Amino acid sequence: MAGNSFGKLFKLTTFGESHGQAIGGIIDGCPAGIQLDLEQIQTELNRRKPGQSSIVTQRKEPDTVEFYSGIFEEKTTGTPIGFVIKNANQKSKDYSHIKDTYRPSHADYTYDEKYGVRDYRGGGRSSARETASRVVAGAIAKQFLKDIQFNAFTASVGKIGMDKSIEELDFSLIETNAVRCPDPASAAKMEEYIKKIKKDGDTVGGTVQCVIKNMPKGLGEPVFDKLHAELGKAMLSVNAVKGFEYGSGFEGTKMKGSEHNDLFNEDGSTQTNLSGGIQGGISNGMDIYFNVAFKPVATIMQKQETINKKGENVEMQGKGRHDPCVVPRAVPIVEAMAALVIADYLLQNKSSKI
Amino acid sequence: MAGNSFGKLFKLTTFGESHGQAIGGIIDGCPAGIQLDLEQIQTELNRRKPGQSSIVTQRKEPDTVEFYSGIFEEKTTGTPIGFVIKNANQKSKDYSHIKDTYRPSHADYTYDEKYGVRDYRGGGRSSARETASRVVAGAIAKQFLKDIQFNAFTASVGKIGMDKSIEELDFSLIETNAVRCPDPASAAKMEEYIKKIKKDGDTVGGTVQCVIKNMPKGLGEPVFDKLHAELGKAMLSVNAVKGFEYGSGFEGTKMKGSEHNDLFNEDGSTQTNLSGGIQGGISNGMDIYFNVAFKPVATIMQKQETINKKGENVEMQGKGRHDPCVVPRAVPIVEAMAALVIADYLLQNKSSKI
Amino acid sequence: MAGNSFGKLFKLTTFGESHGQAIGGIIDGCPAGIQLDLEQIQTELNRRKPGQSSIVTQRKEPDTVEFYSGIFEEKTTGTPIGFVIKNANQKSKDYSHIKDTYRPSHADYTYDEKYGVRDYRGGGRSSARETASRVVAGAIAKQFLKDIQFNAFTASVGKIGMDKSIEELDFSLIETNAVRCPDPASAAKMEEYIKKIKKDGDTVGGTVQCVIKNMPKGLGEPVFDKLHAELGKAMLSVNAVKGFEYGSGFEGTKMKGSEHNDLFNEDGSTQTNLSGGIQGGISNGMDIYFNVAFKPVATIMQKQETINKKGENVEMQGKGRHDPCVVPRAVPIVEAMAALVIADYLLQNKSSKI
Amino acid sequence: MAGNSFGKLFKLTTFGESHGQAIGGIIDGCPAGIQLDLEQIQTELNRRKPGQSSIVTQRKEPDTVEFYSGIFEEKTTGTPIGFVIKNANQKSKDYSHIKDTYRPSHADYTYDEKYGVRDYRGGGRSSARETASRVVAGAIAKQFLKDIQFNAFTASVGKIGMDKSIEELDFSLIETNAVRCPDPASAAKMEEYIKKIKKDGDTVGGTVQCVIKNMPKGLGEPVFDKLHAELGKAMLSVNAVKGFEYGSGFEGTKMKGSEHNDLFNEDGSTQTNLSGGIQGGISNGMDIYFNVAFKPVATIMQKQETINKKGENVEMQGKGRHDPCVVPRAVPIVEAMAALVIADYLLQNKSSKI
Repeated sequence: MAGNSFGKLFKLTTFGESHGQAIGGIIDGCPAGIQLDLEQIQTELNRRKPGQSSIVTQRKEPDTVEFYSGIFEEKTTGTPIGFVIKNANQKSKDYSHIKDTYRPSHADYTYDEKYGVRDYRGGGRSSARETASRVVAGAIAKQFLKDIQFNAFTASVGKIGMDKSIEELDFSLIETNAVRCPDPASAAKMEEYIKKIKKDGDTVGGTVQCVIKNMPKGLGEPVFDKLHAELGKAMLSVNAVKGFEYGSGFEGTKMKGSEHNDLFNEDGSTQTNLSGGIQGGISNGMDIYFNVAFKPVATIMQKQETINKKGENVEMQGKGRHDPCVVPRAVPIVEAMAALVIADYLLQNKSSKI
Repeated sequence: MAGNSFGKLFKLTTFGESHGQAIGGIIDGCPAGIQLDLEQIQTELNRRKPGQSSIVTQRKEPDTVEFYSGIFEEKTTGTPIGFVIKNANQKSKDYSHIKDTYRPSHADYTYDEKYGVRDYRGGGRSSARETASRVVAGAIAKQFLKDIQFNAFTASVGKIGMDKSIEELDFSLIETNAVRCPDPASAAKMEEYIKKIKKDGDTVGGTVQCVIKNMPKGLGEPVFDKLHAELGKAMLSVNAVKGFEYGSGFEGTKMKGSEHNDLFNEDGSTQTNLSGGIQGGISNGMDIYFNVAFKPVATIMQKQETINKKGENVEMQGKGRHDPCVVPRAVPIVEAMAALVIADYLLQNKSSKI
Repeated sequence: MAGNSFGKLFKLTTFGESHGQAIGGIIDGCPAGIQLDLEQIQTELNRRKPGQSSIVTQRKEPDTVEFYSGIFEEKTTGTPIGFVIKNANQKSKDYSHIKDTYRPSHADYTYDEKYGVRDYRGGGRSSARETASRVVAGAIAKQFLKDIQFNAFTASVGKIGMDKSIEELDFSLIETNAVRCPDPASAAKMEEYIKKIKKDGDTVGGTVQCVIKNMPKGLGEPVFDKLHAELGKAMLSVNAVKGFEYGSGFEGTKMKGSEHNDLFNEDGSTQTNLSGGIQGGISNGMDIYFNVAFKPVATIMQKQETINKKGENVEMQGKGRHDPCVVPRAVPIVEAMAALVIADYLLQNKSSKI
Repeated sequence: MAGNSFGKLFKLTTFGESHGQAIGGIIDGCPAGIQLDLEQIQTELNRRKPGQSSIVTQRKEPDTVEFYSGIFEEKTTGTPIGFVIKNANQKSKDYSHIKDTYRPSHADYTYDEKYGVRDYRGGGRSSARETASRVVAGAIAKQFLKDIQFNAFTASVGKIGMDKSIEELDFSLIETNAVRCPDPASAAKMEEYIKKIKKDGDTVGGTVQCVIKNMPKGLGEPVFDKLHAELGKAMLSVNAVKGFEYGSGFEGTKMKGSEHNDLFNEDGSTQTNLSGGIQGGISNGMDIYFNVAFKPVATIMQKQETINKKGENVEMQGKGRHDPCVVPRAVPIVEAMAALVIADYLLQNKSSKI
């Protein structure tokens, strides 16, 4: 099954290693007739791009997407959309020093255990570079779902969170700072902290929150493919993610039913929204919101003990240009994955009744 | 896609409503040649059964599983295993009082929005009764995976948790108390609290933790089907689940890379296990552990305001015999889903290399 | 993948061995809101039933279908439809004489090679008894597709065919004879021939033709899932089928393009229909027609040399009550499979454009 | 579901239109560790290429495949293999004369009905150019299956067949003539006939036969995914195919069981092979053989009446360089599809027993 596809009706399959010739993908099942804004797709991709600010990796990758099929006269045709992003960083260097070394908390060891072979020139397939293809597909999904708003943002960096509730946030501020936090005061603290971490050669984790507004009702397929189950899988499939919660989440486990139930208004909306816009795995039209936990990036600019293929102890130190905190660049990825999930369920829901 | 199947190679499809004639399922892809202990399957089912202790619902359902195919002379034959659990609770009552009423934080409203029709005699397809079929399939998966241990247990009820770390727990104590908590002192507090909640006609949430020991290396399919992504989806598909985290989880977001990285021992094992046994979506042979958040049961024995199909305000009160806390009965469900995921990936991994 | 499911959106999964307790299946993805005529489903099943005439097997099997879920107040609810057909023929006999013997041109040998184990009490999973579940699902698909007519019939038995073209046939005559041939004169010859074959303890093959009228345009998914490719797979998956052709079929290979092209009328219909209602894998609204080749039944009432599990030569002779010609009973199966394919593509087509 | 993927475990997804920038695909699920001969892949592609002989289209397309991922140091890595074939024929011409015209027996009309939009610059997605991607994937599958021989060849052109049985054929002669017929005398007649047809501006159909030697036992998944059912679907999905038969095929319908049954030898092989190497949908180790029917190419160099988008009668004539007979170039496509099916089932079979 190999795991390189996501979605059932609006389906993305990706390919590509970080140091191969190119990455890319095929979107199969995108309905015909969508008027595409191709520049907007590139804009989304630029939000994920390295080098966009002083708090992210300074690697140079132009990340220009080329479309090879499925689009004609700027409209989708219903045929598969094939696209490619060429890799800039693939010059042949000397990789002998890392060839046989397993970096701690990376996928080097597990890939070798699973496949018996590995493209050792970088993260290979396990590199977060793969998510660029997700952002391309998500950008198209968003244009398909143009009435639905996907608002992802940095909600915490390390122990620094926000004091505001979702209702108090102004999502138009997300792109006004490098951290992508809609609360400027918290954003400033987060940015300062990331800079300090970077100077230390260390890294730090954080959380991304996403609020989906203007959701249609009825999306989600019981019982195994509940809407939040697929959203959870989508988020957990992103590099460095360790957890997912929606609605009341882990906090909700501490509540009583009499506190937690969302009572109805006469129009079917609810007075509270601890359900997070999903009941029985199906959207009820209220806002969907969820949190995604990102661990600290494993590559640090400090010396670490590790082992090589022979099981010998060796010492290594991260080189090059890595993110001190992955969260700001993860924001567009979370949005992209959410859009892919919703697009898929919108198509699936067309079969729910005659 | 309809969402009633789980797994790709070891695949479960379930059917059945809470008040229909029967529930059941088909397991397709179970390898031939597994010697089955049929009594053990029933034992697992009994762990999920209503009426097993004073802190769970007192409904009477025998929950006896009948196998119709796929097993011959107590061995699996490689053909699909069809099974049925007859419903005891399907006598024709008068349902007119709930027929058009939407219970708060249940799936009544969303099912009607999605399908335009609904079996109003109970939770129908959205009832947690469906999970009995999962336990049957999970019990078979466990027998297939007989060298792997699945240890799920109640880790918290409301705000009552445990003070012990995973390493300090004795999993053999899980079944010694009604709450299914391996820490007897905490178990007693949890049990007492659930009884109080029940007396109040209220409900409460909690968390289930699961530790998988003796994991093979190499299971999991990058990039979308990472092992923890599928585990997360499996858990989030269970009724009342609001969140999932594995390894360091949400706490890990507050850590630095220099604290979080798991350094290797010479044999490939790691000195710490914040990764939770999974790196790059692939198992590394260390223990897998994760937490699952369950919200409080929506059905409470207190009066609540709600609406009916016409959008009119009506008052309702839960009747019958419901769980004050779903967590103790959820423990075998979590184990079953984990076993289904691991069984599936074990089969998938057979194709990873020549 | 195990192969016991058919369809993607309107999906049937079946279980059951010929001599187990029951066969049955789950239909997942049937849209909500279809008013079902349950008696009509049983009627379709009776068309496939043993013992219905003197030219089919005289086995006694009531073949009564019981529905366990997915139907409420005679309407589909959008939840999976679970159904069971109990086996009558499962009394414990002495099977020792066939336990280790491989019947020629049956699946005994290949099942043992594949699975290492086999329910030796009969054909097991490879028995055509499994197709009863297909007929149930197909009958529901037909009710979903009530505007489309599926007309399958016996077109040849051995070397006896019909002299009439499709246009000359009166489909209302199909059920007026035991052979299910719409040409009464040919039907009489076929029936007489089957009786002779039966008396000789032999069997004979034949072909089923199917004409689908009132087809919607636009069904079929290029490029791998062309409508005729899936129809072909559906038919080839039926027991004893050796070939499939649609439209001009094998005869069309002898024609020139100038003879074979179907010229358009102004309304988009075509003057001829050598395309068989499908162009580029997508229905064009003209009638779909195709032929299905059935080999002679392998079980003959004559002595045959064969081998046992140890590779020793043994002699065997078919016992019991077998069909001298499978074609008359295959007619409803062909219709059922065609209906399943069309139902699935109708749902898939809902995603083709915005 | 969109139909652009084939296979379950060894899975090919293709993209690309005939006049777009490129075609290509992703192979997901190819096991790691296969030593690839990349030149051999290009050699297979050249067998399908236009302009290779005087009896095929004289279009100029270099058809050079570029691999972007999944291969490292000439070995497969278990990650998806992304590949691209650039289109040479995409210069911007004036397409206004064909923009709104529906060519008879092409997919122009049905694509417009289905999608409401169409890349009118050529066959678009329905062009047989897409099959180049299949040949690439099939060539990799063949290298994975290096012990199995796939021998496809032209068995008939129009009414011209061969007088020889399969056993009499020398497959090493297939590539010695432009028609790809292993019987030189018949090949000469076929070639002459195709030249005549071409001079007339007409086209003609034909059949491809394929013999698979050295098959492993046990491949195929009952009941819906029988090996021959998937082979049939694979072949029927190729452009211009109208029929598929395996083993005794349509001729077998005229036989008696006493003639048709394949009696066993002591080693499990059979004395005859009317079963075509497959029993109960599972390979028995004997040679698999099947026939594929190709209709005459729809584009003829003669004037034809047709309609345009408005439903008006217009006259058209094929232009450019088209194949008078598709069969010689279809031979490598049939082999490729067969290899993809067998590779997939080989992987699926790994889960059949413990």
